[in-house]
Amino acid sequence: MANRLRIAVLGATGVAGQQFVAALAGHPWFELVRLAGSERSAGRRYLEALRDADGALRWFAGGEVPAEAADLLVEDAHTFAPAGLDLVFSAVEAEAARTLEPRLALHVPVISTASAFRYEPDVPILVPAVNLGPCGNEPGADHSALLAVQRRRRGWRGFIAPGPNCTTTGLVLALKPILDSFGLRRVIMTSLQACSGAGRSPGVIGLDILDNIIPFIPREEEKVETETRKILGRLGGDGDAVHLVPRALPVSCTCTRVPVLDGHTEAVFCATERPAPVEAVREAMQSFGADLIALGLPSAPPRLIEVHQDPYRPQPRLDRDAGGGMTTVVGRLRPETALGDHGVKFVLVSHNTKMGAARGALLVAESLVHRGLL
Amino acid sequence: MANRLRIAVLGATGVAGQQFVAALAGHPWFELVRLAGSERSAGRRYLEALRDADGALRWFAGGEVPAEAADLLVEDAHTFAPAGLDLVFSAVEAEAARTLEPRLALHVPVISTASAFRYEPDVPILVPAVNLGPCGNEPGADHSALLAVQRRRRGWRGFIAPGPNCTTTGLVLALKPILDSFGLRRVIMTSLQACSGAGRSPGVIGLDILDNIIPFIPREEEKVETETRKILGRLGGDGDAVHLVPRALPVSCTCTRVPVLDGHTEAVFCATERPAPVEAVREAMQSFGADLIALGLPSAPPRLIEVHQDPYRPQPRLDRDAGGGMTTVVGRLRPETALGDHGVKFVLVSHNTKMGAARGALLVAESLVHRGLL
Amino acid sequence: MANRLRIAVLGATGVAGQQFVAALAGHPWFELVRLAGSERSAGRRYLEALRDADGALRWFAGGEVPAEAADLLVEDAHTFAPAGLDLVFSAVEAEAARTLEPRLALHVPVISTASAFRYEPDVPILVPAVNLGPCGNEPGADHSALLAVQRRRRGWRGFIAPGPNCTTTGLVLALKPILDSFGLRRVIMTSLQACSGAGRSPGVIGLDILDNIIPFIPREEEKVETETRKILGRLGGDGDAVHLVPRALPVSCTCTRVPVLDGHTEAVFCATERPAPVEAVREAMQSFGADLIALGLPSAPPRLIEVHQDPYRPQPRLDRDAGGGMTTVVGRLRPETALGDHGVKFVLVSHNTKMGAARGALLVAESLVHRGLL
Amino acid sequence: MANRLRIAVLGATGVAGQQFVAALAGHPWFELVRLAGSERSAGRRYLEALRDADGALRWFAGGEVPAEAADLLVEDAHTFAPAGLDLVFSAVEAEAARTLEPRLALHVPVISTASAFRYEPDVPILVPAVNLGPCGNEPGADHSALLAVQRRRRGWRGFIAPGPNCTTTGLVLALKPILDSFGLRRVIMTSLQACSGAGRSPGVIGLDILDNIIPFIPREEEKVETETRKILGRLGGDGDAVHLVPRALPVSCTCTRVPVLDGHTEAVFCATERPAPVEAVREAMQSFGADLIALGLPSAPPRLIEVHQDPYRPQPRLDRDAGGGMTTVVGRLRPETALGDHGVKFVLVSHNTKMGAARGALLVAESLVHRGLL
Repeated sequence: MANRLRIAVLGATGVAGQQFVAALAGHPWFELVRLAGSERSAGRRYLEALRDADGALRWFAGGEVPAEAADLLVEDAHTFAPAGLDLVFSAVEAEAARTLEPRLALHVPVISTASAFRYEPDVPILVPAVNLGPCGNEPGADHSALLAVQRRRRGWRGFIAPGPNCTTTGLVLALKPILDSFGLRRVIMTSLQACSGAGRSPGVIGLDILDNIIPFIPREEEKVETETRKILGRLGGDGDAVHLVPRALPVSCTCTRVPVLDGHTEAVFCATERPAPVEAVREAMQSFGADLIALGLPSAPPRLIEVHQDPYRPQPRLDRDAGGGMTTVVGRLRPETALGDHGVKFVLVSHNTKMGAARGALLVAESLVHRGLL
Repeated sequence: MANRLRIAVLGATGVAGQQFVAALAGHPWFELVRLAGSERSAGRRYLEALRDADGALRWFAGGEVPAEAADLLVEDAHTFAPAGLDLVFSAVEAEAARTLEPRLALHVPVISTASAFRYEPDVPILVPAVNLGPCGNEPGADHSALLAVQRRRRGWRGFIAPGPNCTTTGLVLALKPILDSFGLRRVIMTSLQACSGAGRSPGVIGLDILDNIIPFIPREEEKVETETRKILGRLGGDGDAVHLVPRALPVSCTCTRVPVLDGHTEAVFCATERPAPVEAVREAMQSFGADLIALGLPSAPPRLIEVHQDPYRPQPRLDRDAGGGMTTVVGRLRPETALGDHGVKFVLVSHNTKMGAARGALLVAESLVHRGLL
Repeated sequence: MANRLRIAVLGATGVAGQQFVAALAGHPWFELVRLAGSERSAGRRYLEALRDADGALRWFAGGEVPAEAADLLVEDAHTFAPAGLDLVFSAVEAEAARTLEPRLALHVPVISTASAFRYEPDVPILVPAVNLGPCGNEPGADHSALLAVQRRRRGWRGFIAPGPNCTTTGLVLALKPILDSFGLRRVIMTSLQACSGAGRSPGVIGLDILDNIIPFIPREEEKVETETRKILGRLGGDGDAVHLVPRALPVSCTCTRVPVLDGHTEAVFCATERPAPVEAVREAMQSFGADLIALGLPSAPPRLIEVHQDPYRPQPRLDRDAGGGMTTVVGRLRPETALGDHGVKFVLVSHNTKMGAARGALLVAESLVHRGLL
Repeated sequence: MANRLRIAVLGATGVAGQQFVAALAGHPWFELVRLAGSERSAGRRYLEALRDADGALRWFAGGEVPAEAADLLVEDAHTFAPAGLDLVFSAVEAEAARTLEPRLALHVPVISTASAFRYEPDVPILVPAVNLGPCGNEPGADHSALLAVQRRRRGWRGFIAPGPNCTTTGLVLALKPILDSFGLRRVIMTSLQACSGAGRSPGVIGLDILDNIIPFIPREEEKVETETRKILGRLGGDGDAVHLVPRALPVSCTCTRVPVLDGHTEAVFCATERPAPVEAVREAMQSFGADLIALGLPSAPPRLIEVHQDPYRPQPRLDRDAGGGMTTVVGRLRPETALGDHGVKFVLVSHNTKMGAARGALLVAESLVHRGLL
């Protein structure tokens, strides 16, 4: 790509924003040119804005702060004007997103990790290979067409394309090949979520999580249930009446927090429409997303799903970085017969701050570029 | 009790055996008079047998080694003769149990935490208030009658009464009030199990469990599924043909290991036969076991199940010691509609080495004493 | 004590304040009658003030919130008037303490865990048996006489008596018997401090401390070094010119944070004035504080220092609750010869939120009551 | 290197042996051609020998098992004949090393992580830049000449060159530039050691290390003290009378185990001969080993020591992989005045299974190749 797209990151000093900055370092198609953050950070060099009152560098994205970002001046998100940008990645909190993102989307596409707009009927929650890009033959399975509808309806030059909750990401990736090959009747899921998903202000404190499990994450279960049905749904209607019809799929979740740094683990039980032999499910998963992979997008991993035969896998510490954190690792694939006539159960690990957040959003952006939508 | 029963603990130096020794300290009905262990420990004072090669005391049951046990000589389990004993608590591994326990049961009752005999048709897996003692009005729900059948069939003066797997214990305690009041159609459970459940030779090593989840515990899921159906089953047949008829209840589990010291957490999803409003389930749970509690057995807690309204509970570190580790703590009680027409889902914490092992076995023994069966 | 002293706790909702509330429950001499907290908490029942925005009870002091405190109305610390009180325990942050504590001390004694006044020349940092109550025969070793000087000089009816930093507490308790018996020439100490020492707003976050060590705690090392010299110093001068002369003892520390919930571990290396055979040091430590213990104060443990022979002790999880969290547990006592001609080195564990904070402050208060100073 | 040296790894299935196998993958100078292990592993493919009884792959060296090793047949270490080999890396336990290593050294050089021969007078403990290769101008500072003496005295064609204990490694690397520039009078060190240092059979178990510190590691402190004096010593004598004269440096250590996976943290206090201003120490450390680095050896990092200005560094999780795990990261450099007239104190992190074990041994081997000694 001769001219890289000019990119800004909104909410650049938080854990999620740092992941965007890290993921953009050296990106062949995207050039990070501006950063925005809170009033407190505004006016400071990025490297300085990352320090706390005691001078400690609060960098949570691994390695060093990328050189191309370290010296950028952080702008105030509340007065940030998107002139000259091709795309904004937003990593602000939901409440801030509600006012900041539409203001930017008036002028420029916004790809976001915030939940603020996820549940609006003209806003798709895009996951490559699941409901974006090559994603099966079911009519209406590709939700990217909704972006044009959103644009027209709202009179925006840009759009808002939020990614899913980080717990939803691994789940829909693992469910999609089962849905396509065997049909899905019910899904039960219990998550064991990493601390990085809660951010750092204050996030999960040591006093709560050492030698402990927290059995509740506010609003998380509703998000996963609703998003899963929406992402696996289809577009219906015509023209400007095009809208998302969620899949009528019962999904029930319990979401817990565990003393793990990165990588969400999920125990999934599925009832399928048709018999789903374990070997056939494994093959459907292993080959899932081959069309997407074939595009050679910069952030795409060698495979979207990897299935382990070792019964002790996946483990978050060992598997979260598979495919650069972009591969969903599945294991313990077994028949599930308590939930319905047919089915499978399994465990998955998905990197919540990579495929489940910033890097996943980059893959969405790359897919949209490939499709000419960006 | 004027004359306390004379008790031995088999496998006294392991983590489970230590829990028996700790639980028996100062017990009003039971007097610990003998200890048996491996050949390596045999002939040494208990306190010395607990030391490793570097002289470190390997005591995992909290507080100090009870004075009444510290000086007892550990005998060799393989040549241990039960003369003069009223009861043996066995905490040996399944393989050792297979040969040692029947030899003792020939002469004396054996209450065991080993799985070796759990699945034999004339062996009940007793859980007070669930299938022992006052345990509802369903015919055949009390399995203790099977002990006499076992005795006659095997020609033993004693019997073998194993407790359930530590993960089964909390599950059946929480399910029983639901079953009695609303009927049960399906159960899905994901466990987050503490490290103490794996013992110490070697148990779970730090290199595996720090910042990690292990998604597999060999044979655990089959045990929980089978035992739940058996414990919630009923006695059928007459006379010597009396036998256990497991409940035709689909139960499906995924069992994981988490970086928690004590206390198993379980996320449970139930489909019920009849509507099960959350408030009614809460009441059924809170009042569960009142008849048993009323007996005032030494090891019984003030209530068998405690239901939290705080959505962040139960947590293993905060709740494992409720009722001295004998209360199953439930929280996050919510309607479950993905699994069937009616149902509830919830999270429970149960202390795996107390109610789920040694102290639970003591409560069984006390119940049998109360019933005149010991 | 026929009439219990009427007590208030300032800063009652924080981790340290909660420890005061827990420690005062059922106290035979002290009656908790009022609570004060931040503006945010003011006007709410204590139990409600402990809940966060999501309704979760943020109680970190173990067990349940004491019944006598649950219904007390939290008053605003900034307008709190001490009329009718006999004593205030203050657990506010240093900055708030600087203005709030003198206002109260004008009328009533204040015993504090804050550092605000620790370093003023007329303010003693009292540690029972070290520089308060029976504390050896060295002239000026008992610093309690400074309270009257402080009172006169400042024109207060009350006084401010801060306890030491939680890391200093265990150190001075272990050093004092060595000092008295063998003299001290130099002290080197590295601490491995628990997360509870950092409180909860935000305290230490999971993302920082899981699988990690934080090698720096702001201002901690200076505090420990300065306080140790002050506490082990002596009173000099006469009449109103009485003042504290710190001991000319070189003390050098490195303070680190470790993934432990409660209990500070310290590796201490001492050069002594005279030969200090390990057995003699052990005896000096074991018998240390016998005069204080003999007084039978409500919060005093059976012994102030316990010395382990097991080389694997002390461990924070196993030893922090020794003596109800009031005993300093020492182990690994060995000769130290690299630091000087004679010496010992050892490891200690001290409960940072019990002896090192609220319960230690209660023991100070009880000592002052016994001495007629309160 | 046209012809790579033919290498075997002894003890290839343990944690330390796996690190050798991982470090040799794709090495430009060394070709892994044979593996030896215990009788239990002998005769199995390496990949199979790494599985436990339940089929779980027990691989602790990160990433995947290298393809060039996976299919090698593991030979029985007790009957292993070194014909055709150029070098053996040994990772067996000390006891096994005592008999196995001399048998191999008769024919071929052995570079070992075992402690068996470290303390013999004709055996150097080599650390590049400290006492091997370019290592300052002090006469006798380079200990590699001792290898020829060892060879002659023992009549071996090979030699045994053990690396230091993993805790010694970081310490001597940090001390050497201080010694060279300012002289060293005394050293006090407290270590906070990672779990991987204890291996996996059983290593440190979760029940011991979660929410805990273990204040004792058998024989560790003596090793660190003795090895430090030996490594910083000098060669004395002539011809076959050449021998190691340990430095007369008082070193005193307390070694603890902490809940960290990899990376030893050490708090070091040094008294120096001459004034050692912090800035000058920093410069001496940063430039340390420049001559070695300039050689471009395959395993050498960009710098041997990195000094952080951020007071919150080094942290083991963030810094253990600096320079591919080969850089010792120092921080918290401060004046030390309690220990003597002049001095510095600091905290260091050193990767115990990389620079402190296998990869450090590879760097020794590369240095010896460069020097023509291999």
